[in-house]
Amino acid sequence: MKVSTPLDSGSAPATVIGDVTDRMCPSRGILEHVTSRWGVLVLIALRERGYRFSELRRAVAGVSEKMLAQTLQTLERDGFVHREAHPVIPPRVDYSLTPLGEQAAGLVGRLGRWVERALPAVEAARRAYDSR
Amino acid sequence: MKVSTPLDSGSAPATVIGDVTDRMCPSRGILEHVTSRWGVLVLIALRERGYRFSELRRAVAGVSEKMLAQTLQTLERDGFVHREAHPVIPPRVDYSLTPLGEQAAGLVGRLGRWVERALPAVEAARRAYDSR
Repeated sequence: MKVSTPLDSGSAPATVIGDVTDRMCPSRGILEHVTSRWGVLVLIALRERGYRFSELRRAVAGVSEKMLAQTLQTLERDGFVHREAHPVIPPRVDYSLTPLGEQAAGLVGRLGRWVERALPAVEAARRAYDSR
Repeated sequence: MKVSTPLDSGSAPATVIGDVTDRMCPSRGILEHVTSRWGVLVLIALRERGYRFSELRRAVAGVSEKMLAQTLQTLERDGFVHREAHPVIPPRVDYSLTPLGEQAAGLVGRLGRWVERALPAVEAARRAYDSR
């Protein structure tokens, strides 16, 4: 972490900025949460709209119930996902992005779209590599 | 995967676009490579300049020799990293980004910088969550 103290150090507080290349910096853990296998796909899915747990599990094809619950809890604790439990019968829980989560999901979504478009180039590179 | 055939289907080839929400689409694997724990940090480090293996290991603090070698090989096969072995004594191997890798690293780097700046907000969210 770097602590940047403003030059004009009046009442303005010091700004803490993380450093993902520093193994001790907690920002590295946050980066791992938003880039985790299921974290990425949950953020991308929630960009569309809020989801109930079971809907989200279908949208993020392949995730187990346990891994989805764990991923959502991690993203909720980090302030990226809002969990809303409705006191109805049967119980209903909705998940949506917070404003902070929308920013993260926007950047992750751009990366996802880029990868989708890079697919033919990557497959060509793999064929070249494998035939060496 | 979606195969989009141009309406005016003359000699133009069909364009293959991946779909990371499809569990069978190979783009999901590519996304996992560029967002893997060490893949992210290797891409971010290589944005600065080319590195020799041992230098890169210091730049990506915390990575084991084995994991770094495996990460570099995966990124090389995907066409993101260029590996150049120099026939000198002692042997020297340089790693750098390909043009495709620069695009990936640019997007991953933006996400990394955003996370570094989001650190205070995430830590505040965690304190609120833990005190509930």
